[in-house]
Amino acid sequence: MDNTMLQFPKGDQSSSLDQQSSSNKEKKLEKKQIMDILHDKSIYNVDLDVTKDQNRLTVLKQLLHFLPLTFGKGIVNISDLRNDPGRVVALIDSLSQFDDCKRKRENESLMTKMVVNNFLFGASVFNLGTERHHTLLPDIQSGKLLGCFAMTELGHGSNVRALETTATYDSEKNEFVINTPVRTATKWWIGNSAHAVIATVFARLIIDGVDNEVHAFLVPLRKSNGYDLLPGVKIGDLGMKFGLNGVDNGWIQFDNVRIPASNLLDKFGGVENGVYRSPISSPSKRFATILAQMITGRISICAGTIRNLKIGLAIACRYATKRLQFGPDLKSTENAIMDYPTHYLSLMPMVASVYAYDATRSYLAKKFQERTGEDEIHVLASGLKAFLTQYTTTSLLEMRRMCGGHGYWGLSRFGRLIASNDIGRTFEGDNTLLLQQVAKDLLTQFKKEYTSNKFTGTLKYLSKNTSLFMDRINPITTRRSDEKHILSLKFLLDAMEYRSSKLLIDSANTVAKNYKETKKPFDSWNVSLEILVHLAKAHTETIIVTKFIESIKAVQDRELKDSLKKLCQLYALCKIREDFEFFRNTNYLKNGKAIAIGKIISTLCFELSREAITLVEGFGNDEELLESPLGLADGDLYENICKKVGGPFSPANYLVTPSKL
Amino acid sequence: MDNTMLQFPKGDQSSSLDQQSSSNKEKKLEKKQIMDILHDKSIYNVDLDVTKDQNRLTVLKQLLHFLPLTFGKGIVNISDLRNDPGRVVALIDSLSQFDDCKRKRENESLMTKMVVNNFLFGASVFNLGTERHHTLLPDIQSGKLLGCFAMTELGHGSNVRALETTATYDSEKNEFVINTPVRTATKWWIGNSAHAVIATVFARLIIDGVDNEVHAFLVPLRKSNGYDLLPGVKIGDLGMKFGLNGVDNGWIQFDNVRIPASNLLDKFGGVENGVYRSPISSPSKRFATILAQMITGRISICAGTIRNLKIGLAIACRYATKRLQFGPDLKSTENAIMDYPTHYLSLMPMVASVYAYDATRSYLAKKFQERTGEDEIHVLASGLKAFLTQYTTTSLLEMRRMCGGHGYWGLSRFGRLIASNDIGRTFEGDNTLLLQQVAKDLLTQFKKEYTSNKFTGTLKYLSKNTSLFMDRINPITTRRSDEKHILSLKFLLDAMEYRSSKLLIDSANTVAKNYKETKKPFDSWNVSLEILVHLAKAHTETIIVTKFIESIKAVQDRELKDSLKKLCQLYALCKIREDFEFFRNTNYLKNGKAIAIGKIISTLCFELSREAITLVEGFGNDEELLESPLGLADGDLYENICKKVGGPFSPANYLVTPSKL
Repeated sequence: MDNTMLQFPKGDQSSSLDQQSSSNKEKKLEKKQIMDILHDKSIYNVDLDVTKDQNRLTVLKQLLHFLPLTFGKGIVNISDLRNDPGRVVALIDSLSQFDDCKRKRENESLMTKMVVNNFLFGASVFNLGTERHHTLLPDIQSGKLLGCFAMTELGHGSNVRALETTATYDSEKNEFVINTPVRTATKWWIGNSAHAVIATVFARLIIDGVDNEVHAFLVPLRKSNGYDLLPGVKIGDLGMKFGLNGVDNGWIQFDNVRIPASNLLDKFGGVENGVYRSPISSPSKRFATILAQMITGRISICAGTIRNLKIGLAIACRYATKRLQFGPDLKSTENAIMDYPTHYLSLMPMVASVYAYDATRSYLAKKFQERTGEDEIHVLASGLKAFLTQYTTTSLLEMRRMCGGHGYWGLSRFGRLIASNDIGRTFEGDNTLLLQQVAKDLLTQFKKEYTSNKFTGTLKYLSKNTSLFMDRINPITTRRSDEKHILSLKFLLDAMEYRSSKLLIDSANTVAKNYKETKKPFDSWNVSLEILVHLAKAHTETIIVTKFIESIKAVQDRELKDSLKKLCQLYALCKIREDFEFFRNTNYLKNGKAIAIGKIISTLCFELSREAITLVEGFGNDEELLESPLGLADGDLYENICKKVGGPFSPANYLVTPSKL
Repeated sequence: MDNTMLQFPKGDQSSSLDQQSSSNKEKKLEKKQIMDILHDKSIYNVDLDVTKDQNRLTVLKQLLHFLPLTFGKGIVNISDLRNDPGRVVALIDSLSQFDDCKRKRENESLMTKMVVNNFLFGASVFNLGTERHHTLLPDIQSGKLLGCFAMTELGHGSNVRALETTATYDSEKNEFVINTPVRTATKWWIGNSAHAVIATVFARLIIDGVDNEVHAFLVPLRKSNGYDLLPGVKIGDLGMKFGLNGVDNGWIQFDNVRIPASNLLDKFGGVENGVYRSPISSPSKRFATILAQMITGRISICAGTIRNLKIGLAIACRYATKRLQFGPDLKSTENAIMDYPTHYLSLMPMVASVYAYDATRSYLAKKFQERTGEDEIHVLASGLKAFLTQYTTTSLLEMRRMCGGHGYWGLSRFGRLIASNDIGRTFEGDNTLLLQQVAKDLLTQFKKEYTSNKFTGTLKYLSKNTSLFMDRINPITTRRSDEKHILSLKFLLDAMEYRSSKLLIDSANTVAKNYKETKKPFDSWNVSLEILVHLAKAHTETIIVTKFIESIKAVQDRELKDSLKKLCQLYALCKIREDFEFFRNTNYLKNGKAIAIGKIISTLCFELSREAITLVEGFGNDEELLESPLGLADGDLYENICKKVGGPFSPANYLVTPSKL
């Protein structure tokens, strides 16, 4: 097939994905099926100290091996995004554990390339396309038709509504002409762009000189041999990145590239008899709907980043119990570094966070599966993505330090985990912008529900708290510093809810006041950003604590319940402590209580550090894929390090050829 | 020369470093001399997408080109460590700006390899050796004799007093026998170990079965051809690291390697007529003296890490003023991202920190040059190294995020800056341990000076404050929330001094109380670690604010003085805010004052963001070496990015050979 003018088969739906997948719908994704593939050393564990180009070629080979065995066999399908998102999450969770530890530089390149092809490019066809486009899905998901997702441009990453690439309708030929009218319109950072033969290109749909804003178009890039570019298409290499160097990111320019009108992914807007038509009349709402389809990306990132946190913590905790350093004197046995408060005070809140996030992520996946509460899903997915990627990246950096020089070792995995996790803070929506979206959604709901004073869904907690601001905060409660009170889940939840309720009301007032002064909605929003971002974070933390508490209530096993309760107490108290500025300034906490919280956190960290190994085993990491010699389950630290260490330096290190190396 | 049995020339002092350097003493190091070398594109700007081994070879070539032109010509000397440390700092500062931006993975490899050879290996010979060893210095510093610094072992990094390598004295032959008696004694992470022909090995000096603790020995490793290992020496490659992959780090084992007794670096302890002798009788004091010689390493790291912060901030600030994103509507000009509070509230405190750290670093260098106040130098160098490396690493990670996808680009430099700066938190003393040393030194001084109530040197501020704790804090001051008061340098310094004074007294009490309970000094120290680390950080911040204020007082130019004052106010207020837990819990700040501080910080950040470009230009970065297309001075952001972007993907990315790429 030559893709120059992609034509869609008509009426032949036999191979379409929806039908194919429905027969597999009942199967539950067995992670073991995925793991068995990844354990195959011949393809997935290659010893490579290579250039970036060779690295990418290896990842391509892995992808072309992986897709037919998984998507090709219906173990998972692009349509699961809608029908069974749990399978997608399970797939991401499995793949994000894969790190060919001999491939010393890259982590998650295979997963990222798979996500780009199947869940960005493929999902755009699935979500934004209509029946005729869906016939491509089987070939896309099995790797026969590699594609890329060309949204971001040199000049616009966050403000995608302002993209500059144009798709001008030619009514005579019933075609679109794709162009890069200015340099900043060059498509940028496009993953899979060395190997894609086709792209979903986001471009301004122009008919008779009228700009109908951004839509998505299928644009063939290469001939079917996989590398010769089609006329008018220019593609180049963006080179090395901080991480994910197994992924081929590039730039793309279009010079009068013609495509059939049928290549417009027209679910939310298209051309009928030369006239623009859309089921959604408001351009801003239409664009929001197009973007909203990408929400699964955020849920996937949450899954991947939590797994990174779990991998890092398993390594850091196991290392900390086996690495001894310093003792009472030179002759005594040395202490495990986990025994030092400086160590467990840092590590244990991270372990607690994993449990908190897991509970919330499960809730989100359930809601998403049920397709109930779209607003709540959007707020939670955006907030959680922003929150988790930031937390995980900074935590991994701390874990690296806590493993000392050994943590700087390539085979420790920390460098790669940091570098690959880091971009999660930017892609699929910059974190700061996502938090603003959360704040915006909350304020919109607040406005809607305020008149009725009947707060539902994500803002349910408000009904409890609005009265609180009218009265004074209970002066006895703000002073209670006894352990029983501080450790009670009621106090912890109350504190979280109080904060987000108060910030919501204060945010509404701040924006209103600033609007009064500036009379400009854009400016009044921007000058209020500090409190708005604070609100978004506080709300997300409230939901996390709520869902964590709910999940604990469902646990029967006494011992497990006790451990989880401790983790929940530690998580929530740390969040309160991190925001003492708010809690003290609002007088929600008095002096003595704040001091008591600090002490209780220390005690909880110490107690939980005694169970650290059991707790990280509860993460369900695949032990075979963990691989870091610093964190293997057998705990034979130095033996494992020495097993992985290299022999003599290669002659390539020397100026002259060594005689006897 | 074969190094098997290294003999020192006798009486020939003509080439010794001290003499050589003294003739150059008066010359000031001209950074331009260094920069001119680094601007030489043929050697320092090589387009390499290479394996780690090729990468190391390139760095070796650069080192062998660089050393003869600098140290070889006496532009700088190892002896400057003692005679003219400012030159060393200037050299580090220059070299840390060098990042061959086409060499896409590594930053600071050349500097690190130079530091290992000249300022770790070379400095150990200079500081721990005696006259006969100093004859080696000219060859070491000019790169004719490459060496490594073999201190760290697989089992011991921080607790170096417990190293396990042995050097057993053979009185018959007047030799030492170097051994790796257990696997954990393997020398680990040793930089330059592919290329070193000789090592300074830290080993336990054993005479007649008596362990005289750790000393340093010169041990030849390779024959003079530079790669054949000497009998009994085993060296291997430790492979890839998070960063600095141009540096060859390896492991070394010794099996009965014999060296002449004269190879003991015997300034602080040696063997005379078969008997151990040392000018310092206490083994712990002796070892502390040996380690104290390495303090220049910390001062160098401070210089390098501040430069990294300056490079990162120049890039991030310039990008933020040129990158536009979002506007009031689709037709309006978009705002520069620097205009959003979320952006400038993060960036401007970092800019202020640079000015604060620079003032402190200058003070430290001056004290070091004058060799006055050894205690103060040690406390400040350790605290500052711990403080700055942590701050810079986490700040660079935030800057990467603030530059979005473009910040993830290899050529942005952020990935490399993060990865190379990160190890600064571990080497030359793990940060947590350094902070403990600071706390220990402070408590020791406190104990010494407490009886006299005459606090001097680094603790001078205590005399002001001890009385404060007896009385109540002034209830009016704790409530004053007017701008004039909060912005006064007096209040800022008072707050800093109050905190470190109070923490010092509380720390002393905590350790004493814990000792009463446990009766074990080691345990009573460890359970007190949380407050001790807090004390160390608080003290370091106090000194930083003090030195910043002092430096401002010396400025004549009115406009500059005003800017610096604002930066100082912002720096100190941010530090107070970060530790609201302390200031509120001690009632040093009341509610209204705390709220006012938050608002004033916002205003200062906004005002300073208007001057951001001027402020980063004050950093004195070498514009030619800056290189990141995101942060060039001309500000033509997209033009600069496009200039550096690659062409078509290389055929190496493809499974089959492309026909027309």
